[in-house]
Amino acid sequence: MEIEVIDAQISPIGRMEVLSRAEAARLSDHGHGGLRETFRNCSLAVLNCGNQLDDGKELLERYPSFDVEIIQRSRGIKLDIKGAPASAFVDGKMIRGIQEHLFSVLRDVVYASNEINGYSGLHSTKFDLGSSDGVTDAVFHILRNAGIIDPVSQPNVVVCWGGHSISREEYDYTKLVGYQLGLRGLDICTGCGPGAMKGPMKGATISHAKQRINNARYLGFTEPGIIAAESPNPIVNDLVIFPDVEKRLEAFVRAGHGFVVFPGGVGTAEEILYVLGILLHPENTELPFPLVFTGPKSTEDYFRRIDSFIGETLGAEAQSRYKIIIDDPVAVAREMHAGIGDVRAYRKETRDAYYFNWQLRIEHEFQQPFRPTHENMGKLTLHKQQPRHLLAANLRRAFSGVVAGNVKNDGIREIEKNGLFELHGDPAIMGPMDFLLTSFVTQGRMKLGGRKYNPCYRIVGEASVASTIA
Amino acid sequence: MEIEVIDAQISPIGRMEVLSRAEAARLSDHGHGGLRETFRNCSLAVLNCGNQLDDGKELLERYPSFDVEIIQRSRGIKLDIKGAPASAFVDGKMIRGIQEHLFSVLRDVVYASNEINGYSGLHSTKFDLGSSDGVTDAVFHILRNAGIIDPVSQPNVVVCWGGHSISREEYDYTKLVGYQLGLRGLDICTGCGPGAMKGPMKGATISHAKQRINNARYLGFTEPGIIAAESPNPIVNDLVIFPDVEKRLEAFVRAGHGFVVFPGGVGTAEEILYVLGILLHPENTELPFPLVFTGPKSTEDYFRRIDSFIGETLGAEAQSRYKIIIDDPVAVAREMHAGIGDVRAYRKETRDAYYFNWQLRIEHEFQQPFRPTHENMGKLTLHKQQPRHLLAANLRRAFSGVVAGNVKNDGIREIEKNGLFELHGDPAIMGPMDFLLTSFVTQGRMKLGGRKYNPCYRIVGEASVASTIA
Amino acid sequence: MEIEVIDAQISPIGRMEVLSRAEAARLSDHGHGGLRETFRNCSLAVLNCGNQLDDGKELLERYPSFDVEIIQRSRGIKLDIKGAPASAFVDGKMIRGIQEHLFSVLRDVVYASNEINGYSGLHSTKFDLGSSDGVTDAVFHILRNAGIIDPVSQPNVVVCWGGHSISREEYDYTKLVGYQLGLRGLDICTGCGPGAMKGPMKGATISHAKQRINNARYLGFTEPGIIAAESPNPIVNDLVIFPDVEKRLEAFVRAGHGFVVFPGGVGTAEEILYVLGILLHPENTELPFPLVFTGPKSTEDYFRRIDSFIGETLGAEAQSRYKIIIDDPVAVAREMHAGIGDVRAYRKETRDAYYFNWQLRIEHEFQQPFRPTHENMGKLTLHKQQPRHLLAANLRRAFSGVVAGNVKNDGIREIEKNGLFELHGDPAIMGPMDFLLTSFVTQGRMKLGGRKYNPCYRIVGEASVASTIA
Amino acid sequence: MEIEVIDAQISPIGRMEVLSRAEAARLSDHGHGGLRETFRNCSLAVLNCGNQLDDGKELLERYPSFDVEIIQRSRGIKLDIKGAPASAFVDGKMIRGIQEHLFSVLRDVVYASNEINGYSGLHSTKFDLGSSDGVTDAVFHILRNAGIIDPVSQPNVVVCWGGHSISREEYDYTKLVGYQLGLRGLDICTGCGPGAMKGPMKGATISHAKQRINNARYLGFTEPGIIAAESPNPIVNDLVIFPDVEKRLEAFVRAGHGFVVFPGGVGTAEEILYVLGILLHPENTELPFPLVFTGPKSTEDYFRRIDSFIGETLGAEAQSRYKIIIDDPVAVAREMHAGIGDVRAYRKETRDAYYFNWQLRIEHEFQQPFRPTHENMGKLTLHKQQPRHLLAANLRRAFSGVVAGNVKNDGIREIEKNGLFELHGDPAIMGPMDFLLTSFVTQGRMKLGGRKYNPCYRIVGEASVASTIA
Repeated sequence: MEIEVIDAQISPIGRMEVLSRAEAARLSDHGHGGLRETFRNCSLAVLNCGNQLDDGKELLERYPSFDVEIIQRSRGIKLDIKGAPASAFVDGKMIRGIQEHLFSVLRDVVYASNEINGYSGLHSTKFDLGSSDGVTDAVFHILRNAGIIDPVSQPNVVVCWGGHSISREEYDYTKLVGYQLGLRGLDICTGCGPGAMKGPMKGATISHAKQRINNARYLGFTEPGIIAAESPNPIVNDLVIFPDVEKRLEAFVRAGHGFVVFPGGVGTAEEILYVLGILLHPENTELPFPLVFTGPKSTEDYFRRIDSFIGETLGAEAQSRYKIIIDDPVAVAREMHAGIGDVRAYRKETRDAYYFNWQLRIEHEFQQPFRPTHENMGKLTLHKQQPRHLLAANLRRAFSGVVAGNVKNDGIREIEKNGLFELHGDPAIMGPMDFLLTSFVTQGRMKLGGRKYNPCYRIVGEASVASTIA
Repeated sequence: MEIEVIDAQISPIGRMEVLSRAEAARLSDHGHGGLRETFRNCSLAVLNCGNQLDDGKELLERYPSFDVEIIQRSRGIKLDIKGAPASAFVDGKMIRGIQEHLFSVLRDVVYASNEINGYSGLHSTKFDLGSSDGVTDAVFHILRNAGIIDPVSQPNVVVCWGGHSISREEYDYTKLVGYQLGLRGLDICTGCGPGAMKGPMKGATISHAKQRINNARYLGFTEPGIIAAESPNPIVNDLVIFPDVEKRLEAFVRAGHGFVVFPGGVGTAEEILYVLGILLHPENTELPFPLVFTGPKSTEDYFRRIDSFIGETLGAEAQSRYKIIIDDPVAVAREMHAGIGDVRAYRKETRDAYYFNWQLRIEHEFQQPFRPTHENMGKLTLHKQQPRHLLAANLRRAFSGVVAGNVKNDGIREIEKNGLFELHGDPAIMGPMDFLLTSFVTQGRMKLGGRKYNPCYRIVGEASVASTIA
Repeated sequence: MEIEVIDAQISPIGRMEVLSRAEAARLSDHGHGGLRETFRNCSLAVLNCGNQLDDGKELLERYPSFDVEIIQRSRGIKLDIKGAPASAFVDGKMIRGIQEHLFSVLRDVVYASNEINGYSGLHSTKFDLGSSDGVTDAVFHILRNAGIIDPVSQPNVVVCWGGHSISREEYDYTKLVGYQLGLRGLDICTGCGPGAMKGPMKGATISHAKQRINNARYLGFTEPGIIAAESPNPIVNDLVIFPDVEKRLEAFVRAGHGFVVFPGGVGTAEEILYVLGILLHPENTELPFPLVFTGPKSTEDYFRRIDSFIGETLGAEAQSRYKIIIDDPVAVAREMHAGIGDVRAYRKETRDAYYFNWQLRIEHEFQQPFRPTHENMGKLTLHKQQPRHLLAANLRRAFSGVVAGNVKNDGIREIEKNGLFELHGDPAIMGPMDFLLTSFVTQGRMKLGGRKYNPCYRIVGEASVASTIA
Repeated sequence: MEIEVIDAQISPIGRMEVLSRAEAARLSDHGHGGLRETFRNCSLAVLNCGNQLDDGKELLERYPSFDVEIIQRSRGIKLDIKGAPASAFVDGKMIRGIQEHLFSVLRDVVYASNEINGYSGLHSTKFDLGSSDGVTDAVFHILRNAGIIDPVSQPNVVVCWGGHSISREEYDYTKLVGYQLGLRGLDICTGCGPGAMKGPMKGATISHAKQRINNARYLGFTEPGIIAAESPNPIVNDLVIFPDVEKRLEAFVRAGHGFVVFPGGVGTAEEILYVLGILLHPENTELPFPLVFTGPKSTEDYFRRIDSFIGETLGAEAQSRYKIIIDDPVAVAREMHAGIGDVRAYRKETRDAYYFNWQLRIEHEFQQPFRPTHENMGKLTLHKQQPRHLLAANLRRAFSGVVAGNVKNDGIREIEKNGLFELHGDPAIMGPMDFLLTSFVTQGRMKLGGRKYNPCYRIVGEASVASTIA
């Protein structure tokens, strides 16, 4: 296959980014702590939008000549781009949404570098990243610097989670839900890739047009490790690249007001576990937090299995924090609209900000980056002799490792080098988990860009259904 | 079937309309030359958006309690609406696009009443409607009063014609073409109903979002006789109601810069004959006028038949004025983009306005309203012993009468009262015409709201295929 | 004296004007009912802004080579200007405010021509100018066409009347009043010339800047007969040229919400008489209508004389409709702010429009243009045997004739040809009137561009102080 | 004298400021390194706008009950203000320009605290304030954070320096110059107090209105030590509070494109010496840098003396870097317009930013805060045995100390405690300096708020004219 590439010089549009001399120098410095490399890789992912490809590694190999340099001009900077995917252009002109995304990447890479010592390093002179409050502060500052924090807006951000690789029927359903959300003036926030992350935005774009909402926000939150697999769709008009998975997840729950979960694979399960882990924390029990799982008729079984898994591992209290609505976009939209009304009332009463959920308690456990090495995966404690919210945290990590092993550059290499991850634990946990993962495989929710799925993990200490099937 | 209705008071949004006391009085006057009735009927059509229904008569019968009154307030007028279709509302709030349309109706009805003595009367104290220039002047003034004339914009208006009742596949194709047009920064103008009039706007909405085009225009041109059958979709953000079919058609060719024809039924054929009749005029032969017929693979035969019909009746010169592009949205969009570039260059060179095609010669024949009575239909001269552009005009009238008999309130009543229209003419014309109309029936292009199609015409002087089939 | 002139081609800015072919043709037609001449003369007056010159006739003589032509371009029209006063330009570029004014002139001349048959003719096919309601309707349509009617705004328009040729101290005082009005968010409307018409706008510009009011309106209402003497200052950002004095005066009282009268000469007295004549009408007695006469300390005597004149001729009821506030800009602004609050409450309660005082009753007497010929001046009935509001109307005409004889082109020629106007009347009226006019002369309020004042009238039937002095 | 005060709760307008929880806590913390005190004092200065008062100390004593607290609300913060000067309000509502200034203070105090460790501390973890580049980087970041850096704008910023306490004639002259600058589309940047800092803005406000420039910028640069004496006038719509005198001065020369110096006192002399010191640096000799000294006719002698002083101390090269234009606002504006054209061309050619003069070399000497203690003043080396630009730096410091001793809170206390500053130096320098300072006294340029001027310095080593007079 021959890959068509294009060279171009790109000026900023919309909000202008102006770099200091020092910032521009750091971005051009080939040796400076990976800053330049992060910038280059994220830029390529952004430009690759619309192409089916789940794997950051593959992407880098496909566009070996790709490069991006910063040029200083009297009216600010330009980007000099070489060897970019042709799909980012229409008749030789870059799509403006993608152009904006490039400068969002630039902005966030510079900010992370200035304030948090970059994407690779995880320490900061400004934020105490060793404390829960310090991490939350960093997330807030990243959002504020990206212009996401808007004190004037009423609460209206619906976070939509779900798979990037879903069926046509499921995809159409996410569009219908987005359409109904948009009709009610709600904005959409997703992980900004294809599938369940794109459908709601497309639907809402149409209904926002009908409602003459010109300033609708389509928020896309991503991070350098996943951006290649979930290249932002150009409808996203507020793209933020967080330094790591955990800050991205925290941004969702702090910036969103309502939460819709569509069908997905392991990544979606990870997001569900993350949010339930937080909601199970004793300090969060009173907080309104609208959460709906939904899909077309054909997904009824899928959500029943997830519901069972949650019931068996985290219990009924966890089950009480969400509703499952099957095949009814209008009901989903009304539920979100009403739920966000409760959020608004609660924040007003408690004088918490509309634009950032400061009151939500997130334990430091949930904020610490989990590096899915074989050692870390092996050490996870997956049993019921711990508070439910900590169990949820550990389950989340287990699923996170599986996502990494499937689609992330580093994770894939790790598996290539050291073999499958081994997961240990209480059979009362591991059984349902294995059963759930296996059902994902059977339902084809773990296929990747057309390749046959090779599981990257092995459940140890009990007969595993997954390994049998695989 | 129970029909859900809603009462509401609606304020203007966007461009404010302010009425003088005299104007408000005229709109409230039940006796004043049908002004109030036109306003009421068009308002109902606008509110009925999204419902499948082709027939103005049916619509009026379905919402017998519907009414709209003007209320004066310190900050201008409000509309007091009773018994409106519930589909115009989301959770009790009117969709803003529809709200805008109501005030467009108000604006145009008032303007036509002030300046052209209304929709019923066809004389004016201001415009000499007996001359070609006078009618063109009236069309210009209606557009200017509606805020459509924007001297700053570059030429970028693509008029999309085609059926309001097309197959899913054809509809999806119109979306793809709209998407590609929008990616290239082109705006969409249609007859503003469903089907081929809605698809391109939906597609363009998505690509305009990706290109960050916030001021895109979705122009919808309609008239009181057709609006019930082709209720404007709410994406239309510049709705204009012309006094009659002919001024609406003239507005399309004078305000548009490029023209795409999708599959449709008789109405689409009428539009094709109208535009070819004009382009065949000797004074228009040099004018650039991009015109493409297009559809998915399955429509290849349909367009072949139309092409044959044109060849047989109007000849090769007529065929040279359009291109047929099958199943290639990108090619269509590039053709439009390039063709509009030629239009721009030509206008610049000849100092004609970008915003109104003053140079196009339209004979008064084409501007005069054609009332499709049995008498007028019977008198049409459909033979080749006349200049080609006049033959095109007469063919257009014949098709126009058929559209009226099918979907327009007055036309339907005429047929109910006096039986089928009778069409006379040269067999070399009538044969291909009958063949074409018959093929429309076979292809299901003349079905209406699910009802069985009853032809409203009879071809006289020769064995008619249509009557046989029916 | 050598006059510097400049040639230029000017494009529209701000609201774009688009002409139909017919409109452009009429404006270029040298024979068409004076339309072109009105356009040319008003354009010259607008360009002459900033120069001291009271006399339309002088202006035309000073710029004999001046001309303006309309050029058609693809993006609308341009104006081709020859021999324009250099003062309208800064380093060869026309001041944008003046540029806007040229297109306001164009808009209003075209509108008056289309709808009212021009500035010279006074009949219309659209408005019944023979009735009070018809004239009011015409005034409303002129304002609406000029974009002045804004239903969203709260009532906040303060009309400032007063002389165009006042002392430095008085001028500075008008600036202070404008400053205080602007601090309270009030907009300014004047006759748009220098002196008391400019000062309040300058003051308000500063305070609007401090209050971050970016959409402040500086309304200037003028008419072809006075525009040369009162060339609009470029701060005016909504200039309207009415067809005649009477429609201009009606526009002031219908579009304004509060009224401040600064010192002036005969023109100011005319405005006072006009407004009192209206307010004395029995139907208007309940209407809130904030009216303040004000000036610096030194004008105390001036306003005392006017007050006496009103008391002696129109009586105490007339005196009760205004307040005199000396040397206290803050008090004036507070009075206006509170009074406009009353206007707002009254309109809200009675559901009358904020943007147009429909309820004010203006008798047709006050709307009919008064041509100040020797015959008409001689026929005025200036005695107390008539309702007070009709006496006010006649006094207003008498003063109007004196203004014409002093500064208007036609009036000056009339006097040159036929000698002084002769005014007849009841000594109980004529005495105070003569006394007042004489005091204007003594106070230097009737000097004109530095020339010695030659009275243009003679009071007959009694010893005249004025003629003695002159 | 009774001082009227007002309490109020103020919401942000315009650009919204959103604080993190940590930032809000720091601002409310009474013990936190003076942050709260700086915020309080600057807020009071901003609110005191319009009152004549040169002395920060006096201001604090006059409003002892003044306080400002931050309140968290769902839509962001509010300021709870107690005991504020009544002059900041109009009929009980705070002037919006002042309201904006309060939030500019908040923004800059927070930023300085976050990034530079506050206004008191002068070290930073982010910027290397020990190097020239580091300080410049800090200045750039402060400007960027304040939204001043706009890459889209053409160079058009004219910095106007001059006294805050000047004669009426001089003040009117600064208005005329501002008017002519504004007519040419130029923006104004000043130290944002009264006098020569206010006049140009008022003049430009009027001409910007005439030119329909709605987005004009009125930049005000100040710092905590001077803000009380030079309270920002509310026309300033981009207020920046720098941490110290030196960063403020650097901001002027890096953000400005042209420079006009009006008459003033010692502060103005300080600014002249600062800019000449920089321009004399060998690396800056090629840089275009339009610099004009100007005033009305009566200031001819004043500028002659300054010119002589510069000639005698810094030499002819220094004199070649500026022009003196007397009594000709149009010439000044044309000089600026042309000079800024040169700046633009130079930057374009060298690809330096329009929005920040990166190329200007400023030695670290000029960037280091000079604390005018008795010891530091005594140690200044004021002789010709050093490069001219270093002599300029030292002269600047001497004048800076004198300004502090006259109007700044700390400086005044220093003098009260330790007596007059003693200045040593070469008679060839000290003579002209003493002569110049003495002439300032004679011309009344060192009077302060009506109090008699007491010199705060003594020239040692030579007969001093100043001490004789004083």
